[in-house]
Amino acid sequence: MPEPAPVSMSATLAADEAMARRRRAGEQVLSMTSGEIGLPVHPALRERLAAAVGENAYGPVPGSEALREAAAGYWGRRGLGTDPGLVVAGPGSKPLLFAVLLAIGGDVVVPVPSWVSYAAQARLAGARPISVPTLPGEGGVPEPERLREAVTVARAAGQDPRSVVVTVPDNPTGTVASPATVRRLAAMARELDLVIVSDEIYCDLVYDTSAPAESPALHAPERTVVTTGLTKNLALGGWRTGVARLPDGDLGRALYDRLVSIASQIWSSPPAPVQTAAAYAFGEPPEITEHIAASRRLHEAVVRAVADRFTAAGSTLAPVRATSYLYPDFEPLRDRLARTHGVHDGDDLARFLTERHGLGVLPASAFGESRHALRVRAATSRLYGDTVEQRWAALAAPNPLELPWIREAVDRVDTVLTDLTGTPVAL
Amino acid sequence: MPEPAPVSMSATLAADEAMARRRRAGEQVLSMTSGEIGLPVHPALRERLAAAVGENAYGPVPGSEALREAAAGYWGRRGLGTDPGLVVAGPGSKPLLFAVLLAIGGDVVVPVPSWVSYAAQARLAGARPISVPTLPGEGGVPEPERLREAVTVARAAGQDPRSVVVTVPDNPTGTVASPATVRRLAAMARELDLVIVSDEIYCDLVYDTSAPAESPALHAPERTVVTTGLTKNLALGGWRTGVARLPDGDLGRALYDRLVSIASQIWSSPPAPVQTAAAYAFGEPPEITEHIAASRRLHEAVVRAVADRFTAAGSTLAPVRATSYLYPDFEPLRDRLARTHGVHDGDDLARFLTERHGLGVLPASAFGESRHALRVRAATSRLYGDTVEQRWAALAAPNPLELPWIREAVDRVDTVLTDLTGTPVAL
Repeated sequence: MPEPAPVSMSATLAADEAMARRRRAGEQVLSMTSGEIGLPVHPALRERLAAAVGENAYGPVPGSEALREAAAGYWGRRGLGTDPGLVVAGPGSKPLLFAVLLAIGGDVVVPVPSWVSYAAQARLAGARPISVPTLPGEGGVPEPERLREAVTVARAAGQDPRSVVVTVPDNPTGTVASPATVRRLAAMARELDLVIVSDEIYCDLVYDTSAPAESPALHAPERTVVTTGLTKNLALGGWRTGVARLPDGDLGRALYDRLVSIASQIWSSPPAPVQTAAAYAFGEPPEITEHIAASRRLHEAVVRAVADRFTAAGSTLAPVRATSYLYPDFEPLRDRLARTHGVHDGDDLARFLTERHGLGVLPASAFGESRHALRVRAATSRLYGDTVEQRWAALAAPNPLELPWIREAVDRVDTVLTDLTGTPVAL
Repeated sequence: MPEPAPVSMSATLAADEAMARRRRAGEQVLSMTSGEIGLPVHPALRERLAAAVGENAYGPVPGSEALREAAAGYWGRRGLGTDPGLVVAGPGSKPLLFAVLLAIGGDVVVPVPSWVSYAAQARLAGARPISVPTLPGEGGVPEPERLREAVTVARAAGQDPRSVVVTVPDNPTGTVASPATVRRLAAMARELDLVIVSDEIYCDLVYDTSAPAESPALHAPERTVVTTGLTKNLALGGWRTGVARLPDGDLGRALYDRLVSIASQIWSSPPAPVQTAAAYAFGEPPEITEHIAASRRLHEAVVRAVADRFTAAGSTLAPVRATSYLYPDFEPLRDRLARTHGVHDGDDLARFLTERHGLGVLPASAFGESRHALRVRAATSRLYGDTVEQRWAALAAPNPLELPWIREAVDRVDTVLTDLTGTPVAL
């Protein structure tokens, strides 16, 4: 075995803990670092978990029959007919993604920018990540022609790319690749014989429900692994539950067998009581879909308000169509930021906002971009209040921006951006 | 990246699911395949989990402060003073062991026989496992002189062994390495500059509480990582919770940083509601230690009764001193088994017992031994009843062997062994 690959702490989790430390030290901070959803557990799910506290058996490695069937139904209602026998549940979609990369083997193409952990996981799996940029305003999907170039070059150089990761909708940009781009990506993956690993954990958080994100599994069903979970749509990050859908056919069945074997050696099975509650959630009873709809509306209202501030301050920003992320580009202000604050790159910018203003954001470099890029990712999902009561009020509010604690957070962003850019940004 | 290492399903979990399928198909089976503990969740822990169902934040990667402090206290009461800042909690000790191997890097020495997943995890981590036999009656600890030989040979051949895994008390043999052997192992690891990874998940299940298993962390504190969990002592396998204790000092702090980084990229954090209940358990309030004591007495009574049957049937067996495992050797019956049943090796033997009698056991080959070895591992921890009521009755019984369902299971073992060896084995 070679020297273990260098591994760094998940940038999101590290920044999040740093913000928590500052808060505990008494600083006034506004944490927009992590995509953790600051909303309460729906009572129906609390009840399901409470009723399952006696469940202490491991159960099957790929998850309980109830959970796998519920997840299959969930995908079926989204146009992806699914054999429950090809569903694998795990303690989060993060470990599932890691195990999927191990199961596929070979090197991995990742979009740039993309979620902090894909490239790190690829390295932990012994692979070399190959970066391919996305199209403007269509984050999460490597530009198909550039994918071909990159894979051709990599293969000529002796690398062995076997998979391409996509994120639809996208983290960090909050955009959604167009159906046409997803189709081209699917066709290109087939041409290049790549497995598509489609992280769709934000799929229920597209604001315009009449134009859902399109899964590459619709266009390359024989080679697309889909992962999702309840972390984003139901704020259940701390419960650790995720599911993977393996493609039907020979490739999918071989991958399924490898994935279950890897799961059996790394984590045994997902937490049993959580599985029972998760099965209920994936069944999508009305109170759960209404809860998700309310959180989607809340995300949209707040992320748009904050995005407007960033635009008014002079940064550029693709329209946010999903998630609770925005990814402003301060390139138009490069000279001014260098002159007035000594801010020369994305890392400087994130540091300036965090250290001078207690406004936690992540630099573009955390998402695989050059640190030169004057971009940061801001997450608005922690602005809904510090208490369970405030968070419920935020979910119920016709206009959440009128709630004093949300108003205050958005005003704080105003103030910080005014100091940063020297331009009053209040709309 | 090279072709991904072949990975096979955890033998325990695979055999366990096969037994479950046979049971669902209406067969009468006696599952002694898996070490899953068939006992109920203690009410105090059910209550703690039920009270924590609203907890949905990730929390810190290495676990909550409460859990890490409770685990530190748990180790402190066992003579291992522990800095909570060097404790890492995870979703089971299995993922922690995998991440520890990744964090250390290099190749890994594993005892033979040993738990099914060490070698598989080493391969998934890109390492080559190096097998070293244990001393008779002292399973789980590679024989120190042979460890030196194996490491010297491996290093001369270009391998890079950096760690040695030990299991005290041992799975699969149910034995406990002597303090003298543990001390010699610790000294040898220091001489060879190996990190010791000490899996102590069975440490509360040594029957004679006046002679607890000795941790190598007492003798090589600077280089021993200890892992444990609540899966065995509190039957909480399905809850997925485990903890690792990193050594104090430079090596330990470097490993800690790498381990937390790896955890952040693979699993984020352990399930939050489970952490709260686990913190309570690691605090060892009286009702919990009494519950563990009752389960320890139950394991001892049943495992000894079953071990007696195996001995009476003519197999040899080191005295079982901990756990709910026995590892009989049918070598004395080799000729007879070949002649009467065409059973020539351990795999044949396990297959014969499973397929002819529905008695699920695992062959020695699952634990890294040659398939020639006429040994199987039998776990008695699933003989306590099929219902929660039966299991509580088993825990409470002054003599659990008088309970009809346990009596029946032990008699069934008698019958099967009589058919196998042609010797009536009733005592």
